[in-house]
Amino acid sequence: MSTDLVEQAKKSAAYKAVDENFPESAKVVGIGSGSTVIYVAERLGQLRNKSGFVCIPTGFQSKQLIIDNGLSLGSIEQYSNIDIAFDGADEVDTDLNLIKGGGACLFQEKLVAIASKQFIVVADYRKRSPSKLGIQWTKGVPIEIVPNSYAKITNDLYDLGAKKVILRQGGSSKAGPVVTDNNNFLIDADFGEIADPVKLHTQIKLLVGVVETGLFTDITTKAYFGEENGQVGVLTK
Amino acid sequence: MSTDLVEQAKKSAAYKAVDENFPESAKVVGIGSGSTVIYVAERLGQLRNKSGFVCIPTGFQSKQLIIDNGLSLGSIEQYSNIDIAFDGADEVDTDLNLIKGGGACLFQEKLVAIASKQFIVVADYRKRSPSKLGIQWTKGVPIEIVPNSYAKITNDLYDLGAKKVILRQGGSSKAGPVVTDNNNFLIDADFGEIADPVKLHTQIKLLVGVVETGLFTDITTKAYFGEENGQVGVLTK
Repeated sequence: MSTDLVEQAKKSAAYKAVDENFPESAKVVGIGSGSTVIYVAERLGQLRNKSGFVCIPTGFQSKQLIIDNGLSLGSIEQYSNIDIAFDGADEVDTDLNLIKGGGACLFQEKLVAIASKQFIVVADYRKRSPSKLGIQWTKGVPIEIVPNSYAKITNDLYDLGAKKVILRQGGSSKAGPVVTDNNNFLIDADFGEIADPVKLHTQIKLLVGVVETGLFTDITTKAYFGEENGQVGVLTK
Repeated sequence: MSTDLVEQAKKSAAYKAVDENFPESAKVVGIGSGSTVIYVAERLGQLRNKSGFVCIPTGFQSKQLIIDNGLSLGSIEQYSNIDIAFDGADEVDTDLNLIKGGGACLFQEKLVAIASKQFIVVADYRKRSPSKLGIQWTKGVPIEIVPNSYAKITNDLYDLGAKKVILRQGGSSKAGPVVTDNNNFLIDADFGEIADPVKLHTQIKLLVGVVETGLFTDITTKAYFGEENGQVGVLTK
């Protein structure tokens, strides 16, 4: 079964990401979320020295992963330096730029990512772009905003060249916008293929009302992908 | 009495600011806060066509001013274009750059300011810098931040050259940090005299965790000051 093959590849990618990068001396470890990160937490839970480091979650799912695998739970407010962090991504381009935030935790994810000496992405092959961002992930760049600036920012994003700007809504059973852990809203802004993610991030972040964008540039050290054929793909700079 | 003289000058400055700038065709008017803006609201309440425009507040005090003067209350979410706005400032430099946020409402104040075709500052002479920002207002640049990024941003601000970085605390009877209307914290970062406020704002706003800064650059149309001698000073570009 192809699905089993991909699942096995995701597990292999996660294990390889841990085995090749995890420093024995690590004291503080960031744990993100996503279907491949599950196997990262599993692998970390198998380490002999697992009581020797504390794990910083990026959101609710990753907090559960830490607890479920018998790891020590810490908070980003306690540790401003993280030795290594593992997280998923919605898309990875060939320069290791990322789109993140499909899961609505982009703020805490970025806070952990930029605090980490090494930031390792683990994901399945569908998240890997053949060139730029905006090719595999077509739902747009997730942007966390202060709620009352929604109308203004929507206009601003169209001015910046967005093709479609959507305020993220709750599931069909829920009325109203998604609210983040910081009590903010999320906008998904589709810019098509993104030629210059650093420039686009800067333009968006400077808008009044924008808290953070889901463009992660110049942060990622390496990416490990579970491939369709069961193999593990590795992307480095 | 000198105090009476200044108070009279503030009133004169506010009245002059309204009389010289308020367009008869104005439909949407921003109202800020501060001891001089009180007289702006008073003057607007004396206008014959005062039912012909809606007033957008920048915070709790300005909402009260609008109501107390019999003006129509609106919300920034309803109006993305404001004809004219009046607000105070903690400091105004000779290029009409501002420091704002001593009153903790800098986010909503900036949202109103940048939506306004004309942005008029009214203040007393103590808010007027003889040259750059950071001379009259020495408590630092107010910065609204996401609470859990406090430790990181404090380090970042020192890296950017701040001399002193303080998390703003409640009054002596209150424990813990000041919480803004957006459930965020405020940092006051003292950079001394600010040579390039546009650059400094950009550097700070791009930090992960910063929601907005109290540096208002390239926004202000004119400033009216109640002078110590009872006169009104006007500053234009």
